[in-house]
Amino acid sequence: MGFPSELALATRNEGKIREILQICADWPVRWAMAREIEGGPEHRAATWPEVQETGQSYLENALLKARAAARGAGVPAVADDSGIEVDALGGEPGPRSARFAGPQATDAQNLRLLIERISDVPDSLRTARYRCVAACAWPGGREVWAEGLCEGRLILEPRGSGGFGYDPIFVPQREPHRTMAELPPEEKNAISHRGGALRSLGERLRADP
Amino acid sequence: MGFPSELALATRNEGKIREILQICADWPVRWAMAREIEGGPEHRAATWPEVQETGQSYLENALLKARAAARGAGVPAVADDSGIEVDALGGEPGPRSARFAGPQATDAQNLRLLIERISDVPDSLRTARYRCVAACAWPGGREVWAEGLCEGRLILEPRGSGGFGYDPIFVPQREPHRTMAELPPEEKNAISHRGGALRSLGERLRADP
Repeated sequence: MGFPSELALATRNEGKIREILQICADWPVRWAMAREIEGGPEHRAATWPEVQETGQSYLENALLKARAAARGAGVPAVADDSGIEVDALGGEPGPRSARFAGPQATDAQNLRLLIERISDVPDSLRTARYRCVAACAWPGGREVWAEGLCEGRLILEPRGSGGFGYDPIFVPQREPHRTMAELPPEEKNAISHRGGALRSLGERLRADP
Repeated sequence: MGFPSELALATRNEGKIREILQICADWPVRWAMAREIEGGPEHRAATWPEVQETGQSYLENALLKARAAARGAGVPAVADDSGIEVDALGGEPGPRSARFAGPQATDAQNLRLLIERISDVPDSLRTARYRCVAACAWPGGREVWAEGLCEGRLILEPRGSGGFGYDPIFVPQREPHRTMAELPPEEKNAISHRGGALRSLGERLRADP
């Protein structure tokens, strides 16, 4: 069977939509999206309510979002959930990375809070990893998912304007001289946690018996 | 600073020792090992008590083992902990993969139990991932670690004689026509969770400020 012919994209964040569509550019699907995106692929407009990310794990949150979009669009839906795990903070903020500084926190507020929390941690102990779970949920209840990781370390002075979230202070191990926010999208997607998770999910859908 | 000049290898399992030494062949370190290994590199014999893997997570178990070896050998020590997460079983057996069929279970007993548990799961829902956390602990208390993943799916008829544990029923996504136990060591190490975790840990040690 392989890929469904149509897939709903659960996210409403424009930057994330762009990133996901770039990573999934070779997926032979038509997208159903709740939000217009300039210069994006042709797609069907669909609607569904936004969900609260009340889960305790990346997987729970990704499934909450994918299920809502699958119900709303009437076709299988893809969602992801991701976060950063800082070793010196015992893995925090993890699944609540997007809400680290509060329920309505902006990227800038979250970033500032994380820098504050790690400012006393010696350079050699500022290790961290980005983690992403990408899930696909079918309206009938079937669900599959995959995970991606990106190991790195944190710096205290943000650099670069690309990406999202904590990218300006995250230096990936595989690109140790630039922050994630300094990498062009193709380079970021090739090594990122989201790229890894979505490529694995794509393989899973492609090989679907 | 980079790599320590000497590293203790915490594991006593001969197959695992071979695999780790292959993956870490380019690490510029002398190994201290509690167990002789035929044809292995020159190393210093060291002793330390075996530890019970009482942790609830891969990270806790890897750190328990690494700390014990670092204390016993008097030099930084590397340990790993790994497991298989079966989606249809809610992520089980996870960190207790090696003890799935009981505290003293053999690989064959664990494998048989897992096959039994998934025998009613349809082929398309037999997705799973192997996960490994590799840690390095210093006698003075410093600790670093890294994680690796390998997405795949399970089959019900074991195939192949290489590797360990659940390898005979695990078909990695990146090698979808062979089980992990059918891959030659170099091919397994290139895509495995353990390979990923140890290569990331090696990068972390190499870049150590």
